[in-house]
Amino acid sequence: MDVKEQLEVIRRGADEVLVEQELADKLNSGKPLRVKAGFDPTAPDLHIGHTVLINKLRQFQELGHQVIFLIGDFTGMIGDPTGKNATRPALTRDDVERNAATYQEQVFKILDKDQTEIAFNSTWMNKFTSADMVRLAASYTVARMLERDDFGKRYKAGQPIAIHEFLYPLVQGYDSVALKADVELGGTDQKFNLLVGRELQRHYGMSSQCILTMPLLEGLDGVNKMSKSLNNYVGITEPPGEIFGKLMSISDDLMWRYMELLSFEPLARIRGWKDEVAAGRNPRDIKVVFAQEIVARFHDKAAAEKALSDFEAQFRQGKLPEDIPDFEVAAGTEAPGLVQVLKQIGLTSSTSEAMRMIGQGGIRLDGEKIADKNLKLSKGKTVILQVGKRKFARVSVN
Amino acid sequence: MDVKEQLEVIRRGADEVLVEQELADKLNSGKPLRVKAGFDPTAPDLHIGHTVLINKLRQFQELGHQVIFLIGDFTGMIGDPTGKNATRPALTRDDVERNAATYQEQVFKILDKDQTEIAFNSTWMNKFTSADMVRLAASYTVARMLERDDFGKRYKAGQPIAIHEFLYPLVQGYDSVALKADVELGGTDQKFNLLVGRELQRHYGMSSQCILTMPLLEGLDGVNKMSKSLNNYVGITEPPGEIFGKLMSISDDLMWRYMELLSFEPLARIRGWKDEVAAGRNPRDIKVVFAQEIVARFHDKAAAEKALSDFEAQFRQGKLPEDIPDFEVAAGTEAPGLVQVLKQIGLTSSTSEAMRMIGQGGIRLDGEKIADKNLKLSKGKTVILQVGKRKFARVSVN
Repeated sequence: MDVKEQLEVIRRGADEVLVEQELADKLNSGKPLRVKAGFDPTAPDLHIGHTVLINKLRQFQELGHQVIFLIGDFTGMIGDPTGKNATRPALTRDDVERNAATYQEQVFKILDKDQTEIAFNSTWMNKFTSADMVRLAASYTVARMLERDDFGKRYKAGQPIAIHEFLYPLVQGYDSVALKADVELGGTDQKFNLLVGRELQRHYGMSSQCILTMPLLEGLDGVNKMSKSLNNYVGITEPPGEIFGKLMSISDDLMWRYMELLSFEPLARIRGWKDEVAAGRNPRDIKVVFAQEIVARFHDKAAAEKALSDFEAQFRQGKLPEDIPDFEVAAGTEAPGLVQVLKQIGLTSSTSEAMRMIGQGGIRLDGEKIADKNLKLSKGKTVILQVGKRKFARVSVN
Repeated sequence: MDVKEQLEVIRRGADEVLVEQELADKLNSGKPLRVKAGFDPTAPDLHIGHTVLINKLRQFQELGHQVIFLIGDFTGMIGDPTGKNATRPALTRDDVERNAATYQEQVFKILDKDQTEIAFNSTWMNKFTSADMVRLAASYTVARMLERDDFGKRYKAGQPIAIHEFLYPLVQGYDSVALKADVELGGTDQKFNLLVGRELQRHYGMSSQCILTMPLLEGLDGVNKMSKSLNNYVGITEPPGEIFGKLMSISDDLMWRYMELLSFEPLARIRGWKDEVAAGRNPRDIKVVFAQEIVARFHDKAAAEKALSDFEAQFRQGKLPEDIPDFEVAAGTEAPGLVQVLKQIGLTSSTSEAMRMIGQGGIRLDGEKIADKNLKLSKGKTVILQVGKRKFARVSVN
C-alpha cells in the first residue's frame, strides 16, 4: 500500500495524529515502524472499548509494521507507595506473568502473534539506578508537568500530588526511548504522556516518535464512556448470545460509530452500507452483520451463526432462549410482590425501575405483558419472568 | 553539664532550635546524640563564615556528642543533569576523595577528629534502586515542595524548576534516615531541607531529628553576607597577618557578633568584656584578644603573637611590613601616572577608586600622603606605595 493509503487506514477513527508529516516521512522510509502501546499490569478483563486501540495496532500489523505490546509492570510492582490506596498493593512477578498471559490470550484474538513483541518495562527500569532516575527527572520541568490537565486541576484544587506521580509519565516516556518506538498509541487521555515520550526521545538524542490518540469508546447507552461500573459494556469473554444481543440493542447512530472503531470491514464498504440505509435499507440488516463479525472475532463463525438464529428465534418467533436461570423465592407470610421479586433476583436494579418498566409494558409473566404494579406471585407456582427483550428468569415461589 | 546548661551552649548564636522540648528530651536520655551536618563535595576553600556551623558542631562535641560530617557526594557525582550549568560537571570519585581530604584538613582545626564520623551519602544512595527512588518521591507532595521559598518564587516567576530538583531535598532528608541523626545543623537557608529530614524519619518509622539553624555570618563590611565574590571575607588558609589585620578592621558592633559566633570563649567572659567596654575600656583591647584567638586557631599561638607585634609595629611605629611584594612597571614614552599604576598592580580595583582614595588621603608614596591625582612616577626609580592601612607594594619604573 502506498503511504497515502496507509495514512488513510491509520487515521481511521483516530482522534489525533501528531505529527502527520513526520509519520508520512517515517512511512516513506519503507522500513517497518515500531508501534508501541502500553498496558497496565493489573488484572486484565477487556471489554470492546479497550479493543479500539488494539484494533488500531492490528491495522498497523496489516500494513506490515511491528507492534510492541508493552506491559508497564515496573510501576505496578511498586504498588501504591503512599500506602493510601489499599486496593493497589504491589504486584509480584507471578501476578505480572499471570496477567500478561491473560492479556495475550485476549489480544491475540485480534493481533497477529508473529508480528507482536511483548515487552515489560521492568526489564530496563529495574536496571535503572537512583542516579539514572535523577537524570531522567532532570529532563522535564515542574511547570510543564503541572500543565497536564489532571495534575493542574488537582494542584489548583489543593488536592495532594505526590512527587512520584511526576516520575511516572517520565518512566512511560523513557519506555519509548528504550524501545526505540517510531509511533506510540494511546487513548485521548494519554496524550500528555505520549508527548513526554516524544520529548524524551529527542532529549536522549533519537528521532521523536509520532503519537496517535484513539477516542474512548461510548458505552451501549451511546452517552457515557464504556465501563464495567456503568454496566454499559460488552466484555470480550462474554457468551456469544450476550455479545450479539447487546450489540443488536444499540442505536443506529452508535452502530456507525462502533463500525468505524470496531469493525475490520474497510471504510469503503461501510460507506456503501450507509448509502444503502440512506436509500431505505433496514439498518438492522447491517447491525446483524456487524454483531456477527464481533461474535466471530471473540468466539467463532459457528457461534456467530447460532447467536443470530437464537436471537431471531427468540424475538421474531417468540421462543424462549435455552439457558434461562432458575431462582427460588421464599413466600413468607404473604405472597411476594412482582416488583420485589424482580429486584431480589436482579432482573431490575430496584423496585422503582421494575415499576417504571411495568408502566412501559416492558415486563412479561409467562409471555404476557403485566400492567398491574401490585401483582403478587402465587405460592407453589413456577413462572417465567421477562424484562425487556433479553432478560429472563424462571422463578419458583415456595 | 546538666541539660539546662547544655541547651544554653547549644542555643548560643543559633537562629532556631526546633523543637527545643524534643531536644531537651533527647539530651535527658543521657545517650550521646548523633549530630549531622551536610557539606557540598565541590572544592572546599572555607572562610570563617563557614566555620559558624563547624564551631557549633565542636560545641556539641565538647558536650560529649557524636558529630557526623556528611559529604553529599551522590548529587555531586551526578553533576548538572540538565546540562545547562557548564560549571557543575560531574565529580569523579577521585575529585570527591581529594575534596574530602582538603575539607578534613581544614575542619580538624576546629573539630575533634576522634569524635567525628565522616560519611558520604553515595554509600547508601548508590545502592538505592529506581523503585526506592519512586518510593522516596512518594513520601512528599508537589505542593509542599513548592512551599520552599526559592521553589515558590521561581515557580511564580515562571522560571523553570527541573523535577530532579525536587528529589534533592528528599535525598538530603533520607540521609538523616540512613544516619539515624538525632540533630541536624544547617544555615538558615537550609531550614526547609532540614525539616524534610525530620518528616522523612517519621515516614520511615523512626523518631524525628531536631533541627538547629545557624545564621549566615555578615562579612567584614557588617552588612552583606560573607562571601568570596564580595571580597568581605576572612579565608581560613590566609596568612596570619592577613587574618589578624582583617579582623582588627571590623566595627566594634560587628566584633561582638563575631565573638558570639566565632570565639570559643564562654559567653560569660564575653559578657564581662562587654561590661568593661561599657565602663570605658578601649574595645580595641578585646579585638586584639579575639583576632589572636582566630589566628591561633588556624595557625598557632606563635603566629598570633607575631601577627600582633607586626601589626603594632606597622601602625603604631610606622614601620613597614616585611613581605612587601615587588612590581616592575614599563614606563613607555612618558612617565606612568600613579593612579594607572595602582590599578595595574591591583592595589586598587580601578583608577577611579585610586583617585577617590587619593582624595581621602588614603594613598602614600614612600610614607608621604599623596594629594595630587595626576602625579607621575619617575622612570628608573623604585618607590613604596601604600593603600589604606595594610596594602603595600614596591614598584620599580623601568
